[in-house]
Amino acid sequence: MAQNIYDDTGFFAGYSRLERSVAGLDGAPEWPALRALLPPLAGARVVDLGCGFGWFCRWAAEQGAAQVLGLDVSRNMLARAVEATPSPAVSYRIADLDQLALPAGAFDVAYSSLAFHYVADIRPLFRTIHDALAPGGHLVFSTEHPIYMAPTSPEWTTSADGRSVWPLDGYLNEGARRTNWLAEGVLKYHRTLGTTLSTLIASGFVLTHVEEWGPDAAQVAARPEWNIERERPMFLLIAARREG
Amino acid sequence: MAQNIYDDTGFFAGYSRLERSVAGLDGAPEWPALRALLPPLAGARVVDLGCGFGWFCRWAAEQGAAQVLGLDVSRNMLARAVEATPSPAVSYRIADLDQLALPAGAFDVAYSSLAFHYVADIRPLFRTIHDALAPGGHLVFSTEHPIYMAPTSPEWTTSADGRSVWPLDGYLNEGARRTNWLAEGVLKYHRTLGTTLSTLIASGFVLTHVEEWGPDAAQVAARPEWNIERERPMFLLIAARREG
Repeated sequence: MAQNIYDDTGFFAGYSRLERSVAGLDGAPEWPALRALLPPLAGARVVDLGCGFGWFCRWAAEQGAAQVLGLDVSRNMLARAVEATPSPAVSYRIADLDQLALPAGAFDVAYSSLAFHYVADIRPLFRTIHDALAPGGHLVFSTEHPIYMAPTSPEWTTSADGRSVWPLDGYLNEGARRTNWLAEGVLKYHRTLGTTLSTLIASGFVLTHVEEWGPDAAQVAARPEWNIERERPMFLLIAARREG
Repeated sequence: MAQNIYDDTGFFAGYSRLERSVAGLDGAPEWPALRALLPPLAGARVVDLGCGFGWFCRWAAEQGAAQVLGLDVSRNMLARAVEATPSPAVSYRIADLDQLALPAGAFDVAYSSLAFHYVADIRPLFRTIHDALAPGGHLVFSTEHPIYMAPTSPEWTTSADGRSVWPLDGYLNEGARRTNWLAEGVLKYHRTLGTTLSTLIASGFVLTHVEEWGPDAAQVAARPEWNIERERPMFLLIAARREG
């Protein structure tokens, strides 16, 4: 089973205080870009892989989705999601993305926000998602960007001439990365962007959009401390379609 | 018109001494990976965008291509290409990729090696290539990887704990980059990988493979000094198909 860091007490407490946990979708600066990749959800059957507190599931129901299934490995998060969700169109289930099983052709849209980098092998996951989508169905997801994940020391450093630079190394060496974000030894899996995309293609998806996300000019103007985030991408946003 | 650094005397002399200029395709370590992305060329109509000394054009003719058109902005390089090419299936023409015109539906395969990073705006170029391919035709190309191109100072540096790191900055800020490779002030254009891929998609291509190239284990074993090239990708290899 995948590491379930979200049920670590310290991590959960820290995660619960993040802007994206408190303010929901609008607290995530990449949300407008990710939302723009989604098809209309009215009448759609939607699955959210790594749904956390259920913010997206509730939003999808508000957009008129016919059914929304939220999956997460964290009992803590799902308990809060269930509590916060009045809509009868939404249901939640414990699931491990490393060993996911879904009914065939049962969904029109698969969505995932910042969960796939916890998955050791995306091959079976992408195949499962592909088969769970109806022909023409959409997969829209974000992950941490491999440039962000790869380094031995993923922290800004200062160059000899005084610039902030991202000390990239290990990019082509895929595999486990341990970081100390909110807790010690959080385990994630680095893959190159090429591997992620070519695996999607080999799984039967047609890529429809690839975006290396950083804050845009308006966001930097509103929060000047984010300017440094334009030096390297933090997130990767991908949209793909199951071939008809 | 695009900068034609290849007709700069000093650059041309330096470029002519590179292993890939002397030994041809087999002198380019990424060639086996790029070759693997090509469809069978027997009977195909092929265009090589940035053909240089014509190594690929001659190889394509040896594979049985029906016609091979080599395009390059450099008169110096085309003069050598013409001189070195006996095959009547191959012809060469001066062309500027910034202002390329090609006949519609005239090719089955478009190929380019390390030329597109000299192009300021790839939108018209990708559209021209798309329209010049027959439906189902293939585009296979390499460029310098944006991680390689982006930095203000694209040279290895040493981290505080003694590792070689690539000092990435400016990744999300697209545009001109000037470097001093073989000559002063060589002008190239940095684009994110996301921009390149989404532009291909918007131009009507279906992506079939995306590879961030570095030397593999066998290549590093044969040339241990290449081990550092696994810390960040040097080249980007892409295969795409014109929708039918």
